[in-house]
Amino acid sequence: MDQLLAPAPLSDEVADDEVSSEPRSLLDRLFDRGLLVRTGVDGLYGRSGDFESVVEAIDRLATKLGAGDGAESLRFPPGMSRPAFERSGYLKGFPNLAGTIHCFCGNDADHARLLSCIEAGTDWTGDQAASEIVLTPAACYPLYPVAAARGALPEAGLLFDLQSYCFRHEPSLEPTRMQMFRMREYVRMGSPDQVLAFREMWLERGTAMMRELGLPIAVDPANDPFFGRAGRMLANNQRAQGLKFELNVPVNSEDKPTACLSFNYHQDHFGTIWDIKQADGEVAHTACVGFGLERITLALLRHHGLDIKAWPAALRERLWG
Amino acid sequence: MDQLLAPAPLSDEVADDEVSSEPRSLLDRLFDRGLLVRTGVDGLYGRSGDFESVVEAIDRLATKLGAGDGAESLRFPPGMSRPAFERSGYLKGFPNLAGTIHCFCGNDADHARLLSCIEAGTDWTGDQAASEIVLTPAACYPLYPVAAARGALPEAGLLFDLQSYCFRHEPSLEPTRMQMFRMREYVRMGSPDQVLAFREMWLERGTAMMRELGLPIAVDPANDPFFGRAGRMLANNQRAQGLKFELNVPVNSEDKPTACLSFNYHQDHFGTIWDIKQADGEVAHTACVGFGLERITLALLRHHGLDIKAWPAALRERLWG
Repeated sequence: MDQLLAPAPLSDEVADDEVSSEPRSLLDRLFDRGLLVRTGVDGLYGRSGDFESVVEAIDRLATKLGAGDGAESLRFPPGMSRPAFERSGYLKGFPNLAGTIHCFCGNDADHARLLSCIEAGTDWTGDQAASEIVLTPAACYPLYPVAAARGALPEAGLLFDLQSYCFRHEPSLEPTRMQMFRMREYVRMGSPDQVLAFREMWLERGTAMMRELGLPIAVDPANDPFFGRAGRMLANNQRAQGLKFELNVPVNSEDKPTACLSFNYHQDHFGTIWDIKQADGEVAHTACVGFGLERITLALLRHHGLDIKAWPAALRERLWG
Repeated sequence: MDQLLAPAPLSDEVADDEVSSEPRSLLDRLFDRGLLVRTGVDGLYGRSGDFESVVEAIDRLATKLGAGDGAESLRFPPGMSRPAFERSGYLKGFPNLAGTIHCFCGNDADHARLLSCIEAGTDWTGDQAASEIVLTPAACYPLYPVAAARGALPEAGLLFDLQSYCFRHEPSLEPTRMQMFRMREYVRMGSPDQVLAFREMWLERGTAMMRELGLPIAVDPANDPFFGRAGRMLANNQRAQGLKFELNVPVNSEDKPTACLSFNYHQDHFGTIWDIKQADGEVAHTACVGFGLERITLALLRHHGLDIKAWPAALRERLWG
């Protein structure tokens, strides 16, 4: 049996810590090793060169897995158009996670006032005005208007390859719950059959990839964290219809495993919002697979240890060979 | 003479356009080719796979040029701590370029009101509250507090290697003036002699790199775009003291060339603000070299043509060989 196919237990290093008299959290151990770097804000961290080398290796693995599919590669910056964001419907489900970018639009006198507020330690942000840019909440959000602008889909549908920094306002000491993190995605647009076949294929590929990385995984039905009272119904519907699956790995805790990949069938949600049509004039369906690059990196660190140079040779070969 | 050492003129493709009856701007030609992708916001663009492959190649060149120096590699996300940003002094010089991230902190009723504003097309951003995160204005800004937290510098000083997406609120149709762009940096901290020697070395390396890419360059004294009336004096001082040099290439126009690299001596500015000390207890001096990754990419596209597969073999070898 391939060594890598045996899921690694939580690393010894971790087990040692847990029986010691003063257990340190995973986040603290990542800081101690310099793999993550404190910024003073929970969920916002610098990354060491070692950490980044794992992120990049996982990104390359995702490229390799999809290389034969002819996806069009696009890369968006970490912000998107505010009008497009408003139209996307994100604020219906997740107002609390969004980040709008605000700017100073004043003159010399306003500037002097701003600086005196900072000097005095009082709030200076009240006069900041919303710009036309909002932080990207998921790598695929900037894509839909771009695809829509191209007109009806071809018969075979479309397939895109994306990656970007994303923002979610959820300050947390859970290291896998960062406020700024990278998401790699493949997005499929076409008929229901086309996009469901895509999702099925990536469920298999993603599962195989994570097993080959020696990670213990579970594929579970899931829901997005919809906001508020109305959100509970949306979440229940999403689960009942089997629209979202997540590939979970214990990282920060055994009890609350971390969703490292997600597989989402949007039905005609984005097709309707953006008026994306199939070749036959029907509304397009869409689906995406998302790789949480920092989360998979953290899963590897948790299960194979914080010293990446000491990882099993076969794993290192798979990542950097 | 090495073919690449002969600076390429503006590409034929461009010259053709310019004599045609309906000249299209460089930005429009980049859209036409799909190298950049419209988002509806000036200065905010998607990038094609081809465009990204050039960005990545330049990033690798910068790595190769500095490989022997033993820099510590750190990667920060596109946002930084607001308290650190306030302390950095950025708002003294450039309040108009900064981007603060604001979030929704309301309940179900507030959410309903937000959605009805969007429905009605009225402003919904007034209740967004400033978060603890501000967009990174230059790759080195998150670094100084991290370095300061380590205590006094060693005798030899410190050297860091950084890269991040940065934000500057300057909506423009000048394609080299993006609101969100990537900056690669090396940052040196130490004695005045150490940091000035670093800057001198990178002036030479950067100049050689750009010549080898077949780009016509000029190294010019420069100043940062300080805001307002007081800013004019700061800009004049900066020039008079020779603190900032830029490596300029004609990209969007011959008259207003684009700063593709910059070489900055901060004297004890950041050392004082962050209380970074040299080994002997003196305040540390700092300097940085910044590579504008999108700007260098655009310079190559402007001078060697928009079809990267048709670039000179020697250039392609240098970038991807």
